Amino acid sequence: MEFSLGQIAAILGGKVEGDENLKVYRLDKIQEGAPGGISFLANEKYSSFLYETKSTAVIINESFELTKAHQTNLIRVKDAYASFTQLLEAYDQLRKSEISGVEDPSYADPSSAIGDNCYRGAFSYIGKNCKIGTQVKIHPHAYIGNNVTIGDQTIIEAGAKIASDCVIGKNCHVHHGAVVGSDGFGFAPLPDGSYKAIPQIGNVVLEDNVSIGANTTVDCATMGSTVIKEGAKIDNQVQIAHNVVIGKNTVIASQAGVSGSTKLGENCVVAGKAGIIGHLDLADRTTIGANTGVTKSVKKPGTTIFGYMGMEMKDFLKSYSLFKKLGSMESRLKELEKKP
Amino acid sequence: MEFSLGQIAAILGGKVEGDENLKVYRLDKIQEGAPGGISFLANEKYSSFLYETKSTAVIINESFELTKAHQTNLIRVKDAYASFTQLLEAYDQLRKSEISGVEDPSYADPSSAIGDNCYRGAFSYIGKNCKIGTQVKIHPHAYIGNNVTIGDQTIIEAGAKIASDCVIGKNCHVHHGAVVGSDGFGFAPLPDGSYKAIPQIGNVVLEDNVSIGANTTVDCATMGSTVIKEGAKIDNQVQIAHNVVIGKNTVIASQAGVSGSTKLGENCVVAGKAGIIGHLDLADRTTIGANTGVTKSVKKPGTTIFGYMGMEMKDFLKSYSLFKKLGSMESRLKELEKKP
Amino acid sequence: MEFSLGQIAAILGGKVEGDENLKVYRLDKIQEGAPGGISFLANEKYSSFLYETKSTAVIINESFELTKAHQTNLIRVKDAYASFTQLLEAYDQLRKSEISGVEDPSYADPSSAIGDNCYRGAFSYIGKNCKIGTQVKIHPHAYIGNNVTIGDQTIIEAGAKIASDCVIGKNCHVHHGAVVGSDGFGFAPLPDGSYKAIPQIGNVVLEDNVSIGANTTVDCATMGSTVIKEGAKIDNQVQIAHNVVIGKNTVIASQAGVSGSTKLGENCVVAGKAGIIGHLDLADRTTIGANTGVTKSVKKPGTTIFGYMGMEMKDFLKSYSLFKKLGSMESRLKELEKKP
Repeated sequence: MEFSLGQIAAILGGKVEGDENLKVYRLDKIQEGAPGGISFLANEKYSSFLYETKSTAVIINESFELTKAHQTNLIRVKDAYASFTQLLEAYDQLRKSEISGVEDPSYADPSSAIGDNCYRGAFSYIGKNCKIGTQVKIHPHAYIGNNVTIGDQTIIEAGAKIASDCVIGKNCHVHHGAVVGSDGFGFAPLPDGSYKAIPQIGNVVLEDNVSIGANTTVDCATMGSTVIKEGAKIDNQVQIAHNVVIGKNTVIASQAGVSGSTKLGENCVVAGKAGIIGHLDLADRTTIGANTGVTKSVKKPGTTIFGYMGMEMKDFLKSYSLFKKLGSMESRLKELEKKP
Repeated sequence: MEFSLGQIAAILGGKVEGDENLKVYRLDKIQEGAPGGISFLANEKYSSFLYETKSTAVIINESFELTKAHQTNLIRVKDAYASFTQLLEAYDQLRKSEISGVEDPSYADPSSAIGDNCYRGAFSYIGKNCKIGTQVKIHPHAYIGNNVTIGDQTIIEAGAKIASDCVIGKNCHVHHGAVVGSDGFGFAPLPDGSYKAIPQIGNVVLEDNVSIGANTTVDCATMGSTVIKEGAKIDNQVQIAHNVVIGKNTVIASQAGVSGSTKLGENCVVAGKAGIIGHLDLADRTTIGANTGVTKSVKKPGTTIFGYMGMEMKDFLKSYSLFKKLGSMESRLKELEKKP
Repeated sequence: MEFSLGQIAAILGGKVEGDENLKVYRLDKIQEGAPGGISFLANEKYSSFLYETKSTAVIINESFELTKAHQTNLIRVKDAYASFTQLLEAYDQLRKSEISGVEDPSYADPSSAIGDNCYRGAFSYIGKNCKIGTQVKIHPHAYIGNNVTIGDQTIIEAGAKIASDCVIGKNCHVHHGAVVGSDGFGFAPLPDGSYKAIPQIGNVVLEDNVSIGANTTVDCATMGSTVIKEGAKIDNQVQIAHNVVIGKNTVIASQAGVSGSTKLGENCVVAGKAGIIGHLDLADRTTIGANTGVTKSVKKPGTTIFGYMGMEMKDFLKSYSLFKKLGSMESRLKELEKKP
């Protein structure tokens, strides 16, 4: 992007104090501002940065009273935070909409139908019998297997892989290197101690507005579907095993893992590195703490689970505070044992 | 696939009750059946689904007695479970054998020898002096470095990477985005506090029938080989460090990690998120619980290790059950201290 | 490589005992030596292998006295260990410098400037307005977005992804499948229980001499930069969240994770699978044990933190040793309670 301060003031309904012809092409934090960038000041706590920033311009509340000299240009608006958010989203939208068309070489089997205004980066691959919606962005090195459906406006980032038969909704965002539809980990033991792979012939369904993080893996179902429901947001390097169901608007942070056939309810929150064993049911609005191991189903909605082998949070924290004091408990035991 | 019910009955040695000209092209779970799919019913527990399913057909035991009306077609066989498994494997085999030939553009250095009936997807890469066996499937975006050997019928999924000098056996399956042969993490500290990379010039050897999960990483040895022995099965997002040896038929679940130079015996089972520190030896048939940290070698075959800093399982579970009761132990201590 | 023993002796200033015309093309461990390889013997503990090795040649100290017959050829040098290290680095250098030029097809937008003597593998992608230094190696399937800067002699391995706007220093090494610059995980909750993505418009800065492991993910900042400072070494499958700062020469082992906005000082060491929550500050030279969860800032340089919810190491180990004895503490409590 490249806008003059005058143009930005016009968009925001604000007023420039300084040179309205200066141009900016970047959004900065005020404390890290540099020439060519525009920042904002909404929180009084950061006021001192206004007088030091090297940003070309700062968006500021109409009501803000200057107390010192400054070297930047101001854009005065009613609500600096709201204005900056407006600018941020416009900028993000602009960046995303910039890309379109087909870069060469890319690969798409002629049996696949691809909607209008899609982007297909160089080295992107689309297999047979796929249905790709409109305005879908398939970045370089993205892999789409056979019989895949992708809804409108979904973004498949560079090097993400969607295996055959998967169904991806609208407005989904699958980040770099993520794998959707890898084989579930299922092996039958044979009498000689070796294992035989159990065919994994199901798929993965991502409903609308789902986000899958970078290098996350979502296994296909043995049969049927592994399902990530509408609006669920999954961070980087998360593992979702076969036949799992993740509820609507549930959020899972980085490096967490969910084992086979477990079902999470709606609006759950799973913190980083948590692990959930297989074949459990977790009620709506369950919260799982960081690094927690969940070994039992959770029936009561709104429960918070915590700890190495997950317990209710308050119980765990009490036990852990005493774990820290085990040395003194041991000494107290010894004292008591000395008594006649 | 697309088969008529008559054709399937012929394959299974069964008998159609219904329209033998109807076609199915998918295997379904009976409780999730939809038109165009075929399901099975073996477990009496699921009998009620027979009368509701929307599957086009259901495979059912000869002996099964109907108690209500149904809207599906039946294929009667001696053993519904065995017949369905037979169909499942035939289906899986069919899907895999469907692909062959070379998609364009793909890259293979002319110095590499590639066996008959291989599949090379678009954008697959094969470096110099490789030896690729027969019926090997190298999917789109797969990367094979220089001097790599790959045995017959091995599958390298989309975006998997086999670094230079690695040796891959027969019938191996390297899943999407896996990295085999990345540099070991070895750095020598220098006097100024910085680190210098120690050259990692070894390789990785996968013996026959090894499975490597999606986005798993297996580092090459500093010198010599990191070895995954015959029949070992490794899940997604597992980290295997340099110079590790994984024994025959050992199974490692998702997000586990094995540090440098550790050796696991045969038929071990490592559950999800377990971590094993470096330079240990684990006896045959060692079982490591989920989330367990293993800090010592295990000498006795068949041992089960569990817990944050791994202990024998029964000891850990006893201590953990008391950890949960630390609050009451503390109260009891207080009571005793009150006594005169 | 392929060198005669005579050539190697000349490089090392040593003397051949055996056939100086024999050729070697591999470096081996002495205990795993095979024809065509050269090994070394520096540690007396390994002397017995000298008489059994199948290596074509062994580098050995001038002063070493043979006590039995052997079947290999010797190269006598002043310091066998130093000589072998010299050979190892020469070998590594040779392997890396062998590659150069542009393989076809590769993609680079004409607006990008690419320095001299770069390698660009087949299917590598370089977006718009990038500045690539000299002797940079961009391996097959590597993805470089728009407006990316990469310093001289940096190596981007196969399938690594550098998102738009990132800045990569000199002599960096980004390993296979790593993602630098994926979106930070930031979502604003809406009144209906769904989430809206907060635009992540910042970037990642890797300073000089940084190493990023295979399939590691480093998220871009929400605004500003996620920074990995000079000389930091990061292993495989590590997660670095948005706006994190990793200090100079800090080392992070596999499967560790650092949450948003946390800052690590210089020369810290983070062991495998450790997790650090967001918005913390860790002093210089902090050491974090394997599997540790860090929940508080560390103010004192040189502190070692350990345990499920990180404590100072000695405190944790004391408590954990008593945790193992909770069964006996419980019994002792019972005994005391029996007293009148």
